[in-house]
Amino acid sequence: MALTELPLIHAFDLLGVAVFAISGALAAGQKGLDWVGVVALAVVTSIGGGTLRDVLLNRDAVFWIADPTYLWVILGAAVVTIVHVRFLPVPANALRIADALGLALFSVLGAQIAEAEGASVVVVIVMGILTGVAGGIIRDVLIREVPLVFRPTEELYSVAALGGVLCYLLLKTLAVPASVAAIFGIMLVAGLRLAAVIWKIRLPAFHVSVD
Amino acid sequence: MALTELPLIHAFDLLGVAVFAISGALAAGQKGLDWVGVVALAVVTSIGGGTLRDVLLNRDAVFWIADPTYLWVILGAAVVTIVHVRFLPVPANALRIADALGLALFSVLGAQIAEAEGASVVVVIVMGILTGVAGGIIRDVLIREVPLVFRPTEELYSVAALGGVLCYLLLKTLAVPASVAAIFGIMLVAGLRLAAVIWKIRLPAFHVSVD
Amino acid sequence: MALTELPLIHAFDLLGVAVFAISGALAAGQKGLDWVGVVALAVVTSIGGGTLRDVLLNRDAVFWIADPTYLWVILGAAVVTIVHVRFLPVPANALRIADALGLALFSVLGAQIAEAEGASVVVVIVMGILTGVAGGIIRDVLIREVPLVFRPTEELYSVAALGGVLCYLLLKTLAVPASVAAIFGIMLVAGLRLAAVIWKIRLPAFHVSVD
Repeated sequence: MALTELPLIHAFDLLGVAVFAISGALAAGQKGLDWVGVVALAVVTSIGGGTLRDVLLNRDAVFWIADPTYLWVILGAAVVTIVHVRFLPVPANALRIADALGLALFSVLGAQIAEAEGASVVVVIVMGILTGVAGGIIRDVLIREVPLVFRPTEELYSVAALGGVLCYLLLKTLAVPASVAAIFGIMLVAGLRLAAVIWKIRLPAFHVSVD
Repeated sequence: MALTELPLIHAFDLLGVAVFAISGALAAGQKGLDWVGVVALAVVTSIGGGTLRDVLLNRDAVFWIADPTYLWVILGAAVVTIVHVRFLPVPANALRIADALGLALFSVLGAQIAEAEGASVVVVIVMGILTGVAGGIIRDVLIREVPLVFRPTEELYSVAALGGVLCYLLLKTLAVPASVAAIFGIMLVAGLRLAAVIWKIRLPAFHVSVD
Repeated sequence: MALTELPLIHAFDLLGVAVFAISGALAAGQKGLDWVGVVALAVVTSIGGGTLRDVLLNRDAVFWIADPTYLWVILGAAVVTIVHVRFLPVPANALRIADALGLALFSVLGAQIAEAEGASVVVVIVMGILTGVAGGIIRDVLIREVPLVFRPTEELYSVAALGGVLCYLLLKTLAVPASVAAIFGIMLVAGLRLAAVIWKIRLPAFHVSVD
């Protein structure tokens, strides 16, 4: 039933983990951390969101404890990043596309996992977004940055995840099969995010001065 | 048995959540975050403490997953804050009083939840304080501040929560009914906090210089 | 079966908690936090790693909730630190040796707990390291520092924990009794860490400049 059991989706899920791991490793490199810091940031960025989801939903086992393949993929991605950066430039655009795909998969698959645990609709939406964005938030906290996804300089990110999860849920209430609805949801997240990056679509900032 | 099942207490509990959500939204505004940041900070500030408590106690379900009303209240509070700030000044004193009430309710009700889970006395005390203050700590970490409750410039906050929880537990050992003891505990937390704000009662700072 | 049930090991475990609590209290003092901040940092530094391990492994009860002795030891260590610092210099070298011992005990005992929960080998390794280092990471995040263990200026720390846990697992596959293997693992962690401090053995930094 869960999409992650399908070989193609599982492969994409691992790709999403790898991309987020690279993003964590690069963030560590921008701060000049050592190799332990690189691996640690790769780990928290890529599995932080899903871990928080599984802990909050009180699932029987956190996903990477049940299936340690994820840890090996992350370690591989961190090592590849360290080696790659020594010889070649960072392919920023390829990473941005892969990140959008990772966000898309994580948020829609995360929502499905919450559904399978019997969560109410609003909790399903929250868990979908959380799965997609929480890893990046933990990454930013560890390197002492205000989380990227909260900043008005960042193009739609959580909002793209929200849109895709809503699309998925809406299509399902219209009797579209879950797997088809998920594919549309995933495409919408990635499309929204990439469109926002291309046309620089951002959310307004909120300013308060409290005495 | 749990006080939160009483309509009046449940209403106060939701009020506490709303006030803490406003505090999170305002903190986001002081850092110029975007709307996603505002909602996210409103969420973590208001339910962070209770969520940590529920996860640590390994409760069957985190409170806002069992009852998503909390999420709607938070979303409403965040939207009202964004709109209000555009037109009117922030009612700092009203917020401070409501925050003291929120702290009072969260800490005493949090202690009761730990009791219901069969925790030992010292764990009940820790969980009470944690429920009251952890959300604000997570808020401060996300906006890159040293947590307000750890700073010597902040009037008694955790100590007020501690006092109220101890008062509640003490009255109960004196055979006072739990609900009466809770009301006294709640009043003591709010009273201690507001007195500390009015008379600027603070804890000493601790200074170390390590080579 | 668990080593922590042996009186000597339990005593060492409590010593490790006390040392990590002192490290947290001193970090609070370096930032000039108030007494609440001192106690809070002592708590998260000393039980943060084990708590994260227990939550991720979905154990029946977090260790300090099952046995609140830990909380009293932490409170005592925080008070002793506050009083000591007022009159005497900080014994930096004694603390460093005790910290290495704490790291050693936490990581090997943490790995054993993960084993007892039936985790796979790679998860056992991750949980061992996590138990040893996560508390310090949370401490550093709370005082707004990039975690010490991620910085290239810090001598081998996570790597020492990794080495000891691997040694423990390797000896066990060679049919060495678990308790003997654990003692060798613990000695290796402490030895590696202290050797790294003495000879300033560090991991290379990783630098990236992303546009």
